[in-house]
Parts: sequence; structure tokens; C-alpha cells
Amino acid sequence: MRYKCIVAYDGTLFHGFQTQGHLRTVQSEIEQVLLAINKEATMIYPSGRTDAGVHAHGQVFHFDSAIDIPEQNMKNALNTRLPRDIYIKDVVIVDEDFHARFSAIAKEYHYLIDFSERDPLLKNYRYYCPFHHVDIDSFIAAFKLFEGEHDFRSFTKNQQLSDTTRRIFQISAKQENALVTIKIVGNGFMRHMVRILVAMALEVGRNKITFERLKYIMEQKNRFLSPKIVPSSGLYLFAVYYSQEELKQRLKQDN
Amino acid sequence: MRYKCIVAYDGTLFHGFQTQGHLRTVQSEIEQVLLAINKEATMIYPSGRTDAGVHAHGQVFHFDSAIDIPEQNMKNALNTRLPRDIYIKDVVIVDEDFHARFSAIAKEYHYLIDFSERDPLLKNYRYYCPFHHVDIDSFIAAFKLFEGEHDFRSFTKNQQLSDTTRRIFQISAKQENALVTIKIVGNGFMRHMVRILVAMALEVGRNKITFERLKYIMEQKNRFLSPKIVPSSGLYLFAVYYSQEELKQRLKQDN
Repeated sequence: MRYKCIVAYDGTLFHGFQTQGHLRTVQSEIEQVLLAINKEATMIYPSGRTDAGVHAHGQVFHFDSAIDIPEQNMKNALNTRLPRDIYIKDVVIVDEDFHARFSAIAKEYHYLIDFSERDPLLKNYRYYCPFHHVDIDSFIAAFKLFEGEHDFRSFTKNQQLSDTTRRIFQISAKQENALVTIKIVGNGFMRHMVRILVAMALEVGRNKITFERLKYIMEQKNRFLSPKIVPSSGLYLFAVYYSQEELKQRLKQDN
Repeated sequence: MRYKCIVAYDGTLFHGFQTQGHLRTVQSEIEQVLLAINKEATMIYPSGRTDAGVHAHGQVFHFDSAIDIPEQNMKNALNTRLPRDIYIKDVVIVDEDFHARFSAIAKEYHYLIDFSERDPLLKNYRYYCPFHHVDIDSFIAAFKLFEGEHDFRSFTKNQQLSDTTRRIFQISAKQENALVTIKIVGNGFMRHMVRILVAMALEVGRNKITFERLKYIMEQKNRFLSPKIVPSSGLYLFAVYYSQEELKQRLKQDN
């Protein structure tokens, strides 16, 4: 039996998603619970990793189980045993050719950046930008430069990858008072990519570099030209898409 | 120089407001920073304590300083040194007869209770009610029973107090989908009082007791008749009022 799960988590107290020795990670917490449910070691396969401090509203993973447990019962069994900073939102039984990582066709990330005075109650859930005089419109316009298909080599930590070209289907931004939510939907994201893109667009908003310079940096495919990164606390893996239909629906929504 | 400060904090990682040996508390963190600023031990006096896990948007405290630092500089000096889960929102220099506790004429608490599936990202910031079939209208109506002047002895941990009568000026409730925010403004609140009041009103919403029974429990002034309490994660000290004018403005707002 293959189960597909949608999971939300508060990344604050995790050393990221993936198992790392004895550190507390989302994967190790879930696998520990599955060991209790399935009575045997059970590996989970996520759509991809998330880094320490990154949150998820809709991360997806799958696992196989030798016992046949109905979907709702599996969901309850997991949520009853999981710590309070992880919650399984949905469980469905899928075909054996479904793979959380390889079947994914797109992902959506959100980044929350706040230009007001910091609220200590929200410190782990957004980035309180310490810079004054940011032109928010230029920041958003600069971020929109990344829409389309580009080689993002300048903007990732994964310099050993042979193919660093990714397609960004859509970028949108919502502003409520001093809080800006950036939404980005693409066919794939490399390590630190979203956080570096936000940081570099912010350099344009701060008038430290021009639009043209940002385009030039992208074209140079040189990581050393974009040394900035914003904190993980503002980043959310919002959703993973597995069908063209789902993706089309999503892209229509912001148009 | 007497300074009045308005402070916000995320109660999650504090053992409450008040200093308790070597435990991490809001008071000990602030006093440690004031020691560095004033170069001498400086006590702070809050409007009252808050318990472990309780949050504040508008707690107030005062302290005296031998050095004369302008308000905005004092605010910056504090916020630069304070941990990220405490933030000083406002600093004003006040007369020496101002006392954060004794000059207060009213306080406002909010309680956030959510009847939907839990979101792991909000687990420390509201109470996810595990009970099904709560009649939200009855719950709110029951809570409104507490408006006015009453002896709240049945609803506090502080059984050694001689006077347990308090005046509740206003109770209001706001519902957004499955989230209910209860707002309560009163001239004073005893230990655990708001959390016990919410828990007992919830018993009415769950149809475990009647309105009449809740009134009877209040009249009995007997703590053993109200053994319930809701978690501190949903509770916020929203504001402390020091003038009739401020209080009047606030009470008008929800009428």
C-alpha cells in the first residue's frame, strides 16, 4: 500500500526536513511514528527537503506500508502520535507509480517580508526587514524579473548541479500594510534559491543595484555576484502540484 | 527618571513574567538588559504577572533610572539588546507618582479559541479546542454572563485573597470562520481567572452544564465547582489602561 500525505509543519524547532544523525528533523519524527504504527522501519520520501527554520503548509511525502489501514485511520494514527509542530492534513492511498519527488510537476513557495516594527509574536514566521527606505514597488518589480525559464546558477548553493535551469510559471505579490507576501510557482527550486532571489530583489528595492545589474548577474551564472540571502523564518513550502489540471487551476487564480 | 514601557512578548519560551530563580522569565531578561544600560541593578514593576505561555501585545512596566536617556534612545537601547521574543513598543518618561500596577484602572485580555483542525504553525498562539459539537453561540452567550460586577471566587486560583470581587466592563467576541476571539475588559483579573472563565463557558457550549448551573457556580464562590481551565497558549494581555479617557474610548469601540 502506498500512502501520499500532505503535511504542515512549523520549521522553527527542526533542523530541516531530512534526517541528520540524531538531530530533530521532520523526517525522523514522522518515521519514528510510522515505526510504531507499521511495526517496522518505514522510510518516507518527500517532494524535496526544506532547510532549518523553513515552514510548510503543503509539503508532500509518500511511504509504503505492508498493513492496509484506511486513509482516515492512518491520518488519525499519525496525528495522535506526532508532536504538535507537525500535522498531517491529508492522507490518500495512491498507485505504486506515484512518487512524491519524481511525480511532482511544480511547487509553490511563499516568502513573507515585513517592513514594519517587529512583533515578537511573529518573529519565527516572517522576515522583519531591518532596512529603511526600501521601495516596495521596485522590490516586487525586480522579483518579477525571475518569471520564465532561466539558468539560476547565480542564485543557488547547489553549484555541483549540471542543470541549473528552472521554469518559473508565475510570480505574484500581495501587500497588506507593511507585510509583503511573495508567491512563486515553478517546476523546481534549488537549495537556497528562493531566499537568494528575495535577497537580490531587495537589493534593487534598496537602490543598491539596478534592474539591469540584477539581469546581468543572472546572465553571468556566477554565484559570487549574489552573496545575499534572507532568513528561513519567512519561507513557506505552500504546495506541491502533481497534475497539469491542478497547476492550471492554481495559475489561473492569480491572473 | 521614571520610564513607562509598553512591551510585547511571545510567552512560549518564558516561565511567565516574574523572576523565578534562574528560570528564563520576561522580567529577568529585561532587568539583565537594564543592568547593562544603567550600569546598576534596576528593578522593573509590571502591571501584573502573566503565567508561563501567556502572550502580551501591551503589557506595561515602569522602572527608575539615575541616568537621563531620551525616550527614543532608551527604546532603541532596550530593543537592540533584548532577545527576539520581547519587543518594547513604546517608552515614555512619566511623573514619579505613576506606578504600572497601582495606577492601572483596567486591563484587557484576549483569548483565541479555534474549533477547526489544528495548524501546527499556530499551535502556540491559540487553543485548538478538541471538543466536537460545541455550540459557539451558547459558549459566547455563557461567557457574557460574566459582564458586570461579581465575586469571582469560584474562578480563581488565588483562594487566599480577601476580596475576590471584580468589575468586568465589557465582553465582546469576534468570529472568523472557526476562530473565536474573546475580548474582556475589567478592573482586575486574578490568577487563572480568564482561562477558568473561558473553560467554564465552554462547558455550557458543550452542553455539559446549563446557563443556570454556571450562574449557580458563580454564586456559590466555591472553586471546587469549576475545576476546568483552558491552555495559556490562547491568552494575550492586550492592553493596560491608565486613564478614564483611554478606557472610555476603548469601551465605545465595541459598542
